Amino acid sequence: LRLKGEPFAVLDIEEIYEINPEEVATRTFGTPENNPEVVKVPFDKKHPGWVIYRSMNPIILAGKYTIINEPKLRPPFDRFWYPPRKAREEFDKRGWRTVINHQTRNVPHVGHEMLMKTAAFTGDVEPCHGILVNAIIGVKRRGDYPDEAIVEGHEMVHLAGYIKPERHMVSICLWDMRYGNPLESILHGIIRQNMGCTHHMFGRDHAAVGEYYDMYATQILWTKGIPSFGFPKPVNEVPYGLQIKPQNMKEFWYCPRCGEIAYSDCCNHAKEKQKFSGSFVRGMVAEGVFPPKVIFRPEVYKVIVKWWKKFGYPFCNEEYVKKKEEELEVDLPHMEI
Amino acid sequence: LRLKGEPFAVLDIEEIYEINPEEVATRTFGTPENNPEVVKVPFDKKHPGWVIYRSMNPIILAGKYTIINEPKLRPPFDRFWYPPRKAREEFDKRGWRTVINHQTRNVPHVGHEMLMKTAAFTGDVEPCHGILVNAIIGVKRRGDYPDEAIVEGHEMVHLAGYIKPERHMVSICLWDMRYGNPLESILHGIIRQNMGCTHHMFGRDHAAVGEYYDMYATQILWTKGIPSFGFPKPVNEVPYGLQIKPQNMKEFWYCPRCGEIAYSDCCNHAKEKQKFSGSFVRGMVAEGVFPPKVIFRPEVYKVIVKWWKKFGYPFCNEEYVKKKEEELEVDLPHMEI
Repeated sequence: LRLKGEPFAVLDIEEIYEINPEEVATRTFGTPENNPEVVKVPFDKKHPGWVIYRSMNPIILAGKYTIINEPKLRPPFDRFWYPPRKAREEFDKRGWRTVINHQTRNVPHVGHEMLMKTAAFTGDVEPCHGILVNAIIGVKRRGDYPDEAIVEGHEMVHLAGYIKPERHMVSICLWDMRYGNPLESILHGIIRQNMGCTHHMFGRDHAAVGEYYDMYATQILWTKGIPSFGFPKPVNEVPYGLQIKPQNMKEFWYCPRCGEIAYSDCCNHAKEKQKFSGSFVRGMVAEGVFPPKVIFRPEVYKVIVKWWKKFGYPFCNEEYVKKKEEELEVDLPHMEI
Repeated sequence: LRLKGEPFAVLDIEEIYEINPEEVATRTFGTPENNPEVVKVPFDKKHPGWVIYRSMNPIILAGKYTIINEPKLRPPFDRFWYPPRKAREEFDKRGWRTVINHQTRNVPHVGHEMLMKTAAFTGDVEPCHGILVNAIIGVKRRGDYPDEAIVEGHEMVHLAGYIKPERHMVSICLWDMRYGNPLESILHGIIRQNMGCTHHMFGRDHAAVGEYYDMYATQILWTKGIPSFGFPKPVNEVPYGLQIKPQNMKEFWYCPRCGEIAYSDCCNHAKEKQKFSGSFVRGMVAEGVFPPKVIFRPEVYKVIVKWWKKFGYPFCNEEYVKKKEEELEVDLPHMEI
């Protein structure tokens, strides 16, 4: 296998078989007819994951691979790179017996920070020892925050002390989102379990784009199961199920009565709530308005501004998106074979 | 058995035996020599529980009792009275599968509210469905808040919507604290397990008075066990152990940098913290200062003021303490036997 013209791994082929990409897409993403529990509308060409699946090469090569020439991530991503063994070693070094994963594709506003802080009160006999941010780095859509601002923004949460550095760690996951909501969440669970996490936060619209799925499809899979997707029971109760435990979370909003970021299952002042949706916050950032402290920590906002200056725009523009599609942020040593 | 001159229960005596009260006190409360893991200084006459135990009647009557004439609690306590079966029925009615208990002897300031809100993020696959406040009602010490303000103050937390009424419930436990820290926490666990709770918050200095015990003695018992007290393993891992799970919590403080009530294991601005200790808050209340919103919710503070007007002082004065020692807040119908 080659990457950027250089060999990087050897695949020891055990099996070659053919698939029907359309059928795989239908079974992976679901349809309202086959999966009425969670699929609301039929998938179409606006759904990036469904499109990728349907255009897959039907010939599949399967087998074990061995890395022979490890690609090196470029800064700032290199310092957030924790393959499973390295992640587990780091957890051990920090004395973390319980670790909860927070998957993100966002620069953290205060709502995300509260999500991490409060979800971590799950655990066993005491709150989770560690909080792992695992940022999905890969193909971007226009309007997303650039990956650089995402990882450094999360890092700033502990550098500025909003969460103790000894309890919070930022890492990346190289993955192009398929937006496969419930079934994709299983892959996310496997990745984080391999990294050594004991718990995984799942929010509203996990791995979602548009309104194809029920807002809580992933949570339904992890708490009740979805029989039509082959899960009569929750993901960690089926045979060979995962060990990682879900922590299913609802919404946060700013409540002026409580005077704080409140949780939707706690605060009874929903009428007065001030939701800071991603798009609202993005609008504020795009206008150049310095957001109030209750929305963005000033230190985190400065990270956005830093990369804004570098890329000429606070969010991914066409040029950024194109570059990310064309080139991985890695370099490989030259290797003769 | 009689209460206030009226018969109220029949004890079917199965066993009569004699104990040595001093030995029972030593084994229950511990000594620095016997229990070096958690007992810091010898018990003395300033410790109310130790004194009660040493002055117990050495003749013990054991057996099952049957209530024949149920005492009726006086308002406002009657509406908070949930014996185990009634509590479980109420949980079922509310659809609570997981319930976390908060034991209290305080009017809730915002720190207590945060403790309840955040500790409840434990659970199984999602945060605990219910939060049960179980207020200890019994013999008071001077300077304690009156029981009336405690129960109505906690009720106000949900009436004013800081926690949803459908997730929060206030109840009482008629019990004179023994301040037996680790071993008393087992009794507390049994009581709440009987009421149907699945989780129990244990904070710093649980069931503590003075500085006889390690601040985290109860948490040590529930997470590691205390061999010298007969628990080589945690309370719910020994044979016939409890099912109720501990949620061991540390401290909350107000952090001006975070702009919120922060948790000691999260906030890294400990140098700037503003602790609102019970005695600090009490001092403010005693001075008649209307406390800032970040310390007391105004609605909760009004409950303190209401009972202050009634009793002539915000805290238990000598008269109140004496009355509580002399008379239970119950009435019994007259019964001829």
